[in-house]
Amino acid sequence: MSPVDEFLPPGWTVQEGRGIALVIAGPSGAGKSSVIAEVLRRDPNLAFSVSATTRPRRPEEVDGRDYSFVSEEAFDRMIEEGALIEWTTYGGYRYGTPWAEVAGRLAAGQDLLINVEVQGALALRRSALPHPMVLVFMIPPSRDELRRRIRARGTESDEALARRLAIAEEEIRAIPEFDYLVVNDALEEAVARVEAILAAERARIMRCSP
Amino acid sequence: MSPVDEFLPPGWTVQEGRGIALVIAGPSGAGKSSVIAEVLRRDPNLAFSVSATTRPRRPEEVDGRDYSFVSEEAFDRMIEEGALIEWTTYGGYRYGTPWAEVAGRLAAGQDLLINVEVQGALALRRSALPHPMVLVFMIPPSRDELRRRIRARGTESDEALARRLAIAEEEIRAIPEFDYLVVNDALEEAVARVEAILAAERARIMRCSP
Repeated sequence: MSPVDEFLPPGWTVQEGRGIALVIAGPSGAGKSSVIAEVLRRDPNLAFSVSATTRPRRPEEVDGRDYSFVSEEAFDRMIEEGALIEWTTYGGYRYGTPWAEVAGRLAAGQDLLINVEVQGALALRRSALPHPMVLVFMIPPSRDELRRRIRARGTESDEALARRLAIAEEEIRAIPEFDYLVVNDALEEAVARVEAILAAERARIMRCSP
Repeated sequence: MSPVDEFLPPGWTVQEGRGIALVIAGPSGAGKSSVIAEVLRRDPNLAFSVSATTRPRRPEEVDGRDYSFVSEEAFDRMIEEGALIEWTTYGGYRYGTPWAEVAGRLAAGQDLLINVEVQGALALRRSALPHPMVLVFMIPPSRDELRRRIRARGTESDEALARRLAIAEEEIRAIPEFDYLVVNDALEEAVARVEAILAAERARIMRCSP
């Protein structure tokens, strides 16, 4: 119980049992991972929800920290067992958010940062989770920059590149369904914007209602 | 037009013609004035809406900067002419928000900070202003502290003090109608909370819709 609770109507309370789910999505090339890593580093009260994926681990990634890297069979089993809140296919691999990473921690009042695909973010909002989802859409400063970043990523074929760009365009159309738009023009500023959103959401009176 | 507009659906735009009205209210003793002064000092893109009042000017106050100090007759005339968005009586004096301070500037995309009584904040939300109002309720860290601050203000009679405390209690009951609760335990932290709310509201996607 917060000392501020004495100002609230009976049954209302600040924070307790009401972790915030800060869901960050955006097209490939938006630079989500760097921003998320820095936000987490600075805020010890914020935990990261580790998604499950069937895509191969990249050299810089750590299993269980960046993702739970699982086989196609293991992912099938998670779906069958109802272990995932949502899952989606992206670039030929599957990505999912495990209930075990999210529900219990939010209920214990833990604020969570969730890194998902755009469709996954919308699925999280539609899910049965009894917690308010804060949906942040991250974009690069311009479409040219978006294309440049997607190109810079790949040693891919022209065809794969065209597909990635088309997927990004499709994702951008979902912006109106999100709560916040964060422009990632420079790491420091994008981090500050995400931090401000989290601080503001923590001060929301709605979150105190019974 | 923002460069980010190219990511939005046709007709949507970031910021332009959509100034944010950040309305700050709270009981006497919450320390609104100091926080507001500091927030304004740090953010050159934020303007202050000067309220009209019939209460006498305090020594440290400047007419036209802190308030427009007007006579009872002049205030009557403002009401008759429809020059006020809302007005309310507090401690025997009247306070009002002039349309001229608010409407045109918001329409021009100017973000505004409005310092009002609690009832005035709720009246602003119910007003015909076509702009989203962001309602912030500021409180001291505890009820004991609130009482101490109200007492410290007055060379007043016990009766006047009791009345001020009763008014504060009445105001506190309005908290659920506000958007954000900002605890003013220390100036620096309260200022940071208000700044975060403003930054987050500026990133709200809803504000880009036509």
